[in-house]
Amino acid sequence: MTEKKNIKIIIIGGGLVGSLCASFMGKRGHDVAVYEKRSDIRTAKLSPGRSINLALSHRGRRALRSVGLENEILKTSIPMKGRLLHDLTGKTTSIPYDPVTNEVKFKFYGDSPTKLCIYSVGRNFLNQTLLRAAEKYPNVKLYFNQKLVSSNFNQGTVTLLNTNTCETYEEVAELIIGADGAFSSLRRLMQQTPLFDFSQKYIQHGYVELSIPPERGHLITPNHLHIWPRGEFMMIALPNQDNSWTLTLFMPFDKFENLKTEEGIRKFFWETFPDSIELIEENELVRVFTRLNNPSTLVSVKCKPYHVGSKYLIIGDAAHAMVPFYGQGMNAGFEDCFLLDDLLGKLDEDIQKTVNQFSESRVESAQAICDLAMYNYEEMKSLVTKLTYRIRRALDNALFKQFPDKWVPLYNSVSFSHMDYLQCLENRKWQDSVINKLLLLLITMLVWIAGFVSLKLWRAI
Amino acid sequence: MTEKKNIKIIIIGGGLVGSLCASFMGKRGHDVAVYEKRSDIRTAKLSPGRSINLALSHRGRRALRSVGLENEILKTSIPMKGRLLHDLTGKTTSIPYDPVTNEVKFKFYGDSPTKLCIYSVGRNFLNQTLLRAAEKYPNVKLYFNQKLVSSNFNQGTVTLLNTNTCETYEEVAELIIGADGAFSSLRRLMQQTPLFDFSQKYIQHGYVELSIPPERGHLITPNHLHIWPRGEFMMIALPNQDNSWTLTLFMPFDKFENLKTEEGIRKFFWETFPDSIELIEENELVRVFTRLNNPSTLVSVKCKPYHVGSKYLIIGDAAHAMVPFYGQGMNAGFEDCFLLDDLLGKLDEDIQKTVNQFSESRVESAQAICDLAMYNYEEMKSLVTKLTYRIRRALDNALFKQFPDKWVPLYNSVSFSHMDYLQCLENRKWQDSVINKLLLLLITMLVWIAGFVSLKLWRAI
Repeated sequence: MTEKKNIKIIIIGGGLVGSLCASFMGKRGHDVAVYEKRSDIRTAKLSPGRSINLALSHRGRRALRSVGLENEILKTSIPMKGRLLHDLTGKTTSIPYDPVTNEVKFKFYGDSPTKLCIYSVGRNFLNQTLLRAAEKYPNVKLYFNQKLVSSNFNQGTVTLLNTNTCETYEEVAELIIGADGAFSSLRRLMQQTPLFDFSQKYIQHGYVELSIPPERGHLITPNHLHIWPRGEFMMIALPNQDNSWTLTLFMPFDKFENLKTEEGIRKFFWETFPDSIELIEENELVRVFTRLNNPSTLVSVKCKPYHVGSKYLIIGDAAHAMVPFYGQGMNAGFEDCFLLDDLLGKLDEDIQKTVNQFSESRVESAQAICDLAMYNYEEMKSLVTKLTYRIRRALDNALFKQFPDKWVPLYNSVSFSHMDYLQCLENRKWQDSVINKLLLLLITMLVWIAGFVSLKLWRAI
Repeated sequence: MTEKKNIKIIIIGGGLVGSLCASFMGKRGHDVAVYEKRSDIRTAKLSPGRSINLALSHRGRRALRSVGLENEILKTSIPMKGRLLHDLTGKTTSIPYDPVTNEVKFKFYGDSPTKLCIYSVGRNFLNQTLLRAAEKYPNVKLYFNQKLVSSNFNQGTVTLLNTNTCETYEEVAELIIGADGAFSSLRRLMQQTPLFDFSQKYIQHGYVELSIPPERGHLITPNHLHIWPRGEFMMIALPNQDNSWTLTLFMPFDKFENLKTEEGIRKFFWETFPDSIELIEENELVRVFTRLNNPSTLVSVKCKPYHVGSKYLIIGDAAHAMVPFYGQGMNAGFEDCFLLDDLLGKLDEDIQKTVNQFSESRVESAQAICDLAMYNYEEMKSLVTKLTYRIRRALDNALFKQFPDKWVPLYNSVSFSHMDYLQCLENRKWQDSVINKLLLLLITMLVWIAGFVSLKLWRAI
């Protein structure tokens, strides 16, 4: 074995994916410098009332486990064992994520046999923990208020701006990783190089965050992801550590127009989410919506490849920002870190081969989860309430129970396994074709039986 | 009627579309300032050997006619009355664009009954003519070496850099039009505003330009667009005013790898384009390819909407760059100018309504021609040689001859009419369905006839 190389790595972005990536690269023994354009989230004053939470599932957990952080994160996260649907009358229906726990299934998942659930985790807490963890490596340095300005892709340099001093300076590295989010600056520069495919697509729905304060948190069933599916739009709620809940209302932009007046707001909530009003408080609803300028937007980003030249690579949202409806944005980003680390090991720290193979193997998989996330909005806001969806779900679960390592429902393969996203999608297509064939067989048999019975009857009379 | 408003308009880009747009706006009486980042093409030294030519067809001609430039341009352009296909043995087949000229058809086209053809026109000559024409309006000013740096979309300003003096300055206007090409700076800024969908997609084929010198121009049949279709790749030739021809070889990037050595180059041309060698000269071929670094790339750009706020609009390649295989890139850009002018008139120079309606009505049409351009590569490089394509073409032409105002083949509606691109596509789909139904009817009739004949035969024996 050759001696381990000590590589100089620059990471643009110290958010969730950037800081986790720093730990991975730090653990490999490389010299890592992280440049984050905002100030240090651990010391900065946060805007009050914003408590975004994320759903951590198996892919994210595996990555955290690799750098020894899984337990610390899970300890301060809240398990959600299923979806809880709220109908118009306030009646709730539980749809567990884990219809059946058994040994074989966990062999497939590669996990310990605990109930399958996803975890609600606060973005700020998680980011702070990841930054602290990265900084523990002596070979990892974090620099805040440093903004990427430009890049010389031929020379392998980046130009950064210190936003405190307004000075710009150049840095050089052997590997430059952009983990700077959906509106990535590095990607914007890569976009200007030849043969870089890129697309950004906004959905025509926006969102607004609301919250249930800690003192009323007990009024809502714990350990669930709550959904108020309303066909064209929906509201969801995720629990926070302090007993509060964060609600998010997703809706077409034009429907938000009805929420400009106090009367409109009250009418809308009493008509569509009556059981949520005692949780949020009617006056709070009026306050939030009358102060609202515009709902937040949701973008889906795809590009190909993820690298430029032999040194530049983008990961996480910078490479594949997705709409949040599969809860996989962060998990996919964390999995990127895991896969990048794995490739570096397999390819003996050869950067050129690594960035090439990362693109090669990851682009289509990430595009698959972007598409699935888009599709899951349909499922969440309307399908969950439909009979056909429920029949399919029951069928999926029954087959899953019988063949736990053969028949894994789509949601489970995405959220509770490490199966390639593309394979999850292929798997689902295969399942669809099997079910269609079974249905055809069933219909054929029924026709035969009906024919046989009518023949008997005809002979009898 | 209200008095005509005098609007301050900034146009970013003084290329083909920008300079034509300046004439349109100048003619409307508005105060127009054009900022072009390169130096004045009329005085700048051009890189020798590059003589890009473009195919001008009906949409472009109508726009030029509106500002009184059609005749001047056509006079110095070369009509191409059809495609001339070259097979491997050097045998040629002519496919005229105009299978039948008659009065009714021209009623549909809205043109005088001359033979339908497209015109090969030199980019530099055209750009120079358009700049001269724009400058004739006293209310149009052209500024060269002025680069767009940033834009404040709320205030309706742009910041420009004078690349001679390195000074930046701000300009304000009531309408700011980005006509700055496929890699538009204004679009790059618009991309960072919310809800702006954007995609850029490179095809995995590149191109290299070659030329036939004037002294050998007579060796090739005049007044045609020559095509050497070779299935996976192709070469085309367009005539220039000085009897020279510009050839373009389009090919997958990996195939260009075989053209790195003198031996490879000679072998490739003798095997695939033997009849082109005496035109270009073998030594010249070797010279071009051994000096070549990388083939040029081909990008397709789509975005939605084309405007931001109430003042900013992109047109031409900035809004919808397409691959060159339908010869519609420039024509679509010129048509943008025509449609924008038309809308301003209809909407009484209301800028906000105009930019809104322009987006509303143009985005899908332009996306249709982008898709058609992509599809036409297939047609040019392989379909033209296939029997099914030729049967379809014959059928199209026969129906066209019978119903010249009802059955217009796709290529004709795109190139020789002003029908909305989207409608051209819909029209083609309708034609496909009609032909499929006719085929089904034909088959049914044949089966009946066969049945009838066999019955007769059976009775006879």
